[in-house]
Amino acid sequence: MAENDGSETRAKRKQAVILRAAEEVFLTSGYLGASMDDVASRASVSKQTIYKHFGDKESLFHAVVTNVVETADQEREEQAFVVGDDLRADLRRIARRLLRGVMQDRVLQLRRVVIAEAVRFPNLGRRFYELGPGSTIDKFARAVEDLRDRGLVETADPTMAAEQLNWLILSPALNRAMLLGDRHGLTPHDLDRYADAGVETFLRAHGTPDLGERDDLRL
Amino acid sequence: MAENDGSETRAKRKQAVILRAAEEVFLTSGYLGASMDDVASRASVSKQTIYKHFGDKESLFHAVVTNVVETADQEREEQAFVVGDDLRADLRRIARRLLRGVMQDRVLQLRRVVIAEAVRFPNLGRRFYELGPGSTIDKFARAVEDLRDRGLVETADPTMAAEQLNWLILSPALNRAMLLGDRHGLTPHDLDRYADAGVETFLRAHGTPDLGERDDLRL
Repeated sequence: MAENDGSETRAKRKQAVILRAAEEVFLTSGYLGASMDDVASRASVSKQTIYKHFGDKESLFHAVVTNVVETADQEREEQAFVVGDDLRADLRRIARRLLRGVMQDRVLQLRRVVIAEAVRFPNLGRRFYELGPGSTIDKFARAVEDLRDRGLVETADPTMAAEQLNWLILSPALNRAMLLGDRHGLTPHDLDRYADAGVETFLRAHGTPDLGERDDLRL
Repeated sequence: MAENDGSETRAKRKQAVILRAAEEVFLTSGYLGASMDDVASRASVSKQTIYKHFGDKESLFHAVVTNVVETADQEREEQAFVVGDDLRADLRRIARRLLRGVMQDRVLQLRRVVIAEAVRFPNLGRRFYELGPGSTIDKFARAVEDLRDRGLVETADPTMAAEQLNWLILSPALNRAMLLGDRHGLTPHDLDRYADAGVETFLRAHGTPDLGERDDLRL
């Protein structure tokens, strides 16, 4: 039993090493350019070991996408999207955290790699979309429905409102980063400003009068 | 004189042939993967002819970006962003045209190629950003300032409002296309719906009461 535990731990440690090596190789060389030989050499394991733990190249890439997207935001679980009585403060907290998570270098670069191959390997992009924006939009949609039920938000289409909220928060900064690379020139202060502005526009568009004074809005 | 005109026409025709060949090669092979030999062979000219007309590979790519972005929307000139008395109808017209232009296959694929190389070759992305979203946001900002002066829109920050309007219109569809490739599953009807919804949210957030009944809003 103790021996089994030991080998399980060793297996997990080896998986983590392979995953880290694979992330480096994919993010540097792209999906098509990445070779299993490079990953094996960087992880100091045999290619057979990689195949045993992760299957083929596509499965290994899916594991990298899952790992990067899930660790990008440590508070991605449903609970983190619950909005309490201070709607504006809670949405700003969620928005700032979301944008900071998405704007991390490794998440940006993974998004670039996926986009580069979206036509040739649509499964890679689908995985990223579902785990990333798709999942966030679902959580926002449930939050919007809840806010509507509580009379704080008006909308006939919570999913559309959620899609718009997600991209209001992310798009100005994310598109600069996608197209301008590491020289996008945005500071953490800029990111918070974009996140807050996205929330304000959402609230101006969909918040009910119960929400409080319009004068409070800064946009 | 007639002879000069003839040779100018021939030169322009040759440039157009090279540009079309270069676009095909860059969109298929990416920036790094594209070779001047491929472009020359596809255009049935010598590499020297390409260098003479367009300079090096980066200059040729810049010419392709300029050509694709500028022909993506035949009505990109300032005049097309002028908003008359029927604010909602005019913004919808602009929004639908903008989204349709951006969602063309060759524009999407060029965006993917630029994003793929944004870290290694940031100049390529900068060119795309400035000619594409940067230019559109500038035009929206001037339109928003004009609407504010006419008492139809309220905002303390026309540039931020313009950035948000641009991405409200484009982002839901564009991000699906970027990540899901040609299988994004959006119909022309879906695109118009996203464009209209983006305009409605902008108007709900920033339109003044003079704008008309809130009941008219469909979101």
